[in-house]
Amino acid sequence: MIVGGVRMKIGIVGGGAIGQFLYVSLKERLNAQIVLFTRTSQQAEILNKQGIVLEHQENTLVCSVFAREISHIESVDVLVFAVKQYALEEALRSCELSGHHFTTYLFLQNGMGHLERIERIPKGNIYVGTVSHGVTRKSVNEITLKGVGPIRLSGFRGRDAAFEQAMLQLNSVAFPVQVLESPVEILREKLYINAVINPLTGLLQVQNGMLKENIYFFRMARRIFEELDEVFSFGEAKERVWCDIVAVIEATAKNESSMLQDLKNGRLTEIDGIYGYIMKEADKQKKTLACIPFVYQAIRGIEKRGK
Amino acid sequence: MIVGGVRMKIGIVGGGAIGQFLYVSLKERLNAQIVLFTRTSQQAEILNKQGIVLEHQENTLVCSVFAREISHIESVDVLVFAVKQYALEEALRSCELSGHHFTTYLFLQNGMGHLERIERIPKGNIYVGTVSHGVTRKSVNEITLKGVGPIRLSGFRGRDAAFEQAMLQLNSVAFPVQVLESPVEILREKLYINAVINPLTGLLQVQNGMLKENIYFFRMARRIFEELDEVFSFGEAKERVWCDIVAVIEATAKNESSMLQDLKNGRLTEIDGIYGYIMKEADKQKKTLACIPFVYQAIRGIEKRGK
Repeated sequence: MIVGGVRMKIGIVGGGAIGQFLYVSLKERLNAQIVLFTRTSQQAEILNKQGIVLEHQENTLVCSVFAREISHIESVDVLVFAVKQYALEEALRSCELSGHHFTTYLFLQNGMGHLERIERIPKGNIYVGTVSHGVTRKSVNEITLKGVGPIRLSGFRGRDAAFEQAMLQLNSVAFPVQVLESPVEILREKLYINAVINPLTGLLQVQNGMLKENIYFFRMARRIFEELDEVFSFGEAKERVWCDIVAVIEATAKNESSMLQDLKNGRLTEIDGIYGYIMKEADKQKKTLACIPFVYQAIRGIEKRGK
Repeated sequence: MIVGGVRMKIGIVGGGAIGQFLYVSLKERLNAQIVLFTRTSQQAEILNKQGIVLEHQENTLVCSVFAREISHIESVDVLVFAVKQYALEEALRSCELSGHHFTTYLFLQNGMGHLERIERIPKGNIYVGTVSHGVTRKSVNEITLKGVGPIRLSGFRGRDAAFEQAMLQLNSVAFPVQVLESPVEILREKLYINAVINPLTGLLQVQNGMLKENIYFFRMARRIFEELDEVFSFGEAKERVWCDIVAVIEATAKNESSMLQDLKNGRLTEIDGIYGYIMKEADKQKKTLACIPFVYQAIRGIEKRGK
């Protein structure tokens, strides 16, 4: 992609499964300069030496990488934040303190807890988005793609025509990209899905599909959904939203949710960005939730046990 | 113990950890004829051949056993039901169909779901009781005693002076026995404790002590307790009841609850006798619970997954 006669420069912040997956996907498909910014210099070094190894079905792809530690960030046209919601603050601060220039930001966090924070970024265009791919990280530089899902983007503040055009060019069966009009709606839809699937699969230690297959777990999912309805008042759309969630459970039946993976690996989860946000919303509306705060405590407790 | 010039004959129904533990304890301490009735002939055979192996701290005791399959039950003075609540119906039916005579029954199930059923036993004295020992079964005939707790008994229908006297004779530091006046109170107290500790430790896969040590799990325990208060209206006794429960959590910190053990071993749990009973009580009172039914579904779902 050419911006004013120069190749577009894209920075991806975050060397996790999604960050690496985006790096490979963009590098394969886009004529752009791409840099991966990792939290530690060690990870940057390994990635620079060994590249990213992507497994998908029977195929293995090795992609050479240009990676740097985030403290050595540089000016880029588009800066994509593919870090977990709880790591966003630190990553953003590194970028802000660097004094470098970023024309456009793209935030791919789950939940909606980060919106308040990104509004405070002093300048630049801001996009938010959701990634629905099933990607897991096997080692520092090895990832496995288990399922393809759409990447949805929407302008949250300002617009960047060159960026949007580049993203739309990528759109294909293998890498579906949608640029939509309503940023909050995109995040909400993902939030509802995450709110039902992630904490329960994490708590019960099951693959997504068990939330439908096991009638008792299915009732728990529905109960969480009823509490979402309390807060977000689905109205006539209620059963449609529920069907959408159940469809995602079915489509990702064999996947382990990111929260289950995080808990299994003793990492922090995104529970604050998901249930923390919902509980705040409920508080604002003076509504009382029961099972969502209960599961919130469970996930925080399991996180603590894991450490 | 001599009844009318003849040694008392005690039958223990159930070859699980508690049944075996009672067999050894009564046989050691009581001049009575004791028979263990097991569900399968295989277990009876192993017990008759190899005895019960009881481990306690550094000591191992081997106790010879007289065991029979429950379908070959015979008349006894006292019949002790040391089976799980969900196995009670089948065991009771075996006894009733046998046509044999039982002077006195003692029921040691957790929860209160069984009271309705035992009221329907046509004749005989009925006692209910609770066992608070930490006993786990390692194999068909090996058990480990991890903690000593009181056995509490109370007459539920009729009285049997010889039986009560025999039980009180047993009372010692190593084997504390209490005969109390209010059967329902005894079961209630145990129910509150079980309702807070068992399902949560089963769901979260932790030892009892973690419910206090981990602040998030502690909040979940308190939340379950608040729902118990909704149903049982503790009133002024509320914080005393809570402190009793927390004291049990502390005293049994290193124990795995029976529900956790059942789930780990892919067995059915006593969730119906505990939460099932509480949910029925709430229904009767037209009260709505949230987290108790939610955890109920979780436990039933994990049971189903385990099979």
